Amino acid sequence: MASADEPPERHCWVCFATEREDRVAEWVSPCRCKGCTKWIHQACLQRWLDEKQKGNSGGTVSCPQCGTEYRIVFPKMGPLVYFLQQLDRALSRVSPFAAAGVVVGTVYWSAVTYGAVTVMQVVGHKKGLDVMERADPLFLLMGLPTIPVMLVLGKMIRWEDYAVRLWQRHSAKLQLLSAIVPGIGRPLPRVPVAGGYGGDHISVSRTLCGALVFPSVAGLVGRLLFRRVPSNLQRTVLGGIAFVVIKGILKVYFKQQQFLIQANRRILNYPDRDDPTDTAEEEGGSEG
Amino acid sequence: MASADEPPERHCWVCFATEREDRVAEWVSPCRCKGCTKWIHQACLQRWLDEKQKGNSGGTVSCPQCGTEYRIVFPKMGPLVYFLQQLDRALSRVSPFAAAGVVVGTVYWSAVTYGAVTVMQVVGHKKGLDVMERADPLFLLMGLPTIPVMLVLGKMIRWEDYAVRLWQRHSAKLQLLSAIVPGIGRPLPRVPVAGGYGGDHISVSRTLCGALVFPSVAGLVGRLLFRRVPSNLQRTVLGGIAFVVIKGILKVYFKQQQFLIQANRRILNYPDRDDPTDTAEEEGGSEG
Repeated sequence: MASADEPPERHCWVCFATEREDRVAEWVSPCRCKGCTKWIHQACLQRWLDEKQKGNSGGTVSCPQCGTEYRIVFPKMGPLVYFLQQLDRALSRVSPFAAAGVVVGTVYWSAVTYGAVTVMQVVGHKKGLDVMERADPLFLLMGLPTIPVMLVLGKMIRWEDYAVRLWQRHSAKLQLLSAIVPGIGRPLPRVPVAGGYGGDHISVSRTLCGALVFPSVAGLVGRLLFRRVPSNLQRTVLGGIAFVVIKGILKVYFKQQQFLIQANRRILNYPDRDDPTDTAEEEGGSEG
Repeated sequence: MASADEPPERHCWVCFATEREDRVAEWVSPCRCKGCTKWIHQACLQRWLDEKQKGNSGGTVSCPQCGTEYRIVFPKMGPLVYFLQQLDRALSRVSPFAAAGVVVGTVYWSAVTYGAVTVMQVVGHKKGLDVMERADPLFLLMGLPTIPVMLVLGKMIRWEDYAVRLWQRHSAKLQLLSAIVPGIGRPLPRVPVAGGYGGDHISVSRTLCGALVFPSVAGLVGRLLFRRVPSNLQRTVLGGIAFVVIKGILKVYFKQQQFLIQANRRILNYPDRDDPTDTAEEEGGSEG
């Protein structure tokens, strides 16, 4: 039964059963292996392949020893099954893009709505509706979503930081101002590392929320400070400018104060000393 | 100058300079350490702290050797700076929640819009607007977003999988049907591992897209198959039911065929054998 260069009896390298133990089992020699790993039961190899291919019945599997790819033959598919398989694969391939489209569409639609609400807020409810009804629909679908985008981009310009940095760079020239704002121009005991004090990082959530809330704040400030301006649009624009300027000044002042606080920090001696001379000496010798 | 239990001369454990080398530098002994690590220059310790605290000027820092927390003293803050600091912290704390609110609001508003479009699609454009105008606004704001949610939840009920599993479990009783559908009831050469053939996993993107596209498909199928039904609502509902039933039958058929294909796969012998007897023997002995 066996050829000359084979061991006298086949045995399966999965279940170790020999030909004699199971006379009806089907044998297969699927790879280049010779000798004791040449033969395997068809059923044992199928079980092993199921394990290897878990979830991916089309994947190729090779012999772990000789690396030969197993030749797996499937029964022929009917045309309907083939069509359904192709459809299933196409849908699986397309669906991530479609889902991304759903997400983009959701964001876009909310941006359009936000833009429309902002227009009504800025120029007044009735006038805003009038303006949008008269405008080209295509222009609205393109223009309205740019409103929140512009607000966020505008919010990302951190001009206050540049102002603070300019201030600090030219602080020597600001000696004359020291009478007006405390701390300006005075020689610092030390210069703290940049970014080491107040958070200099841009917070995504804060930028987003600040940008989206800006038109409402501008309207509020406009109504508070510019009550006599009759036009809704002008009042809101003035309110927005006033808010940006006031906020900018406060921010520059706050950053500069943080800088000064950090520059003037001191580390104290450890208090529990039984040697009063040391402490006294340091307190006296602190100003170099 | 130095007390009895100290080394004769102070030296800084950061820059290794001694008292004699820099007579004006300020010294500090910030922790419990004695001996050669007792003293450090105030300026050297400040630089070291800047490095340690990078970006978090309020954080505590301890001596790496004795673990004593350094006592850092900041100059007193004015009330405006304190107020600005508290405001800054409060905004930083609130903004992630506000940003989450923006995301939820975006999704919610898109769901409302989708629900409104679906109502108009299902009952007809004009009648849909009529229905929504007459309805309670609160009911609309609650009811419309549930439409996409229900569609997605409904899509997640995979009744076809249960049908396939029931079929496979009771396939022995289905012998009589084998004349109608090929493969039913025939004894299988083997039972593949569950999930090993067709993808049994739920794809999020596919579920989402399938659910959102369903009303349009239902309307399309309704117009194709039930042209004589005058009511837009009835036609779309009938179309939806027809689509679900047809798709279900196709899916059950496809899954069963995938199962059969997987069950009937065979691994072939390696072809380049110079021993024709082996091959012949196997071909003959394959049916156990």
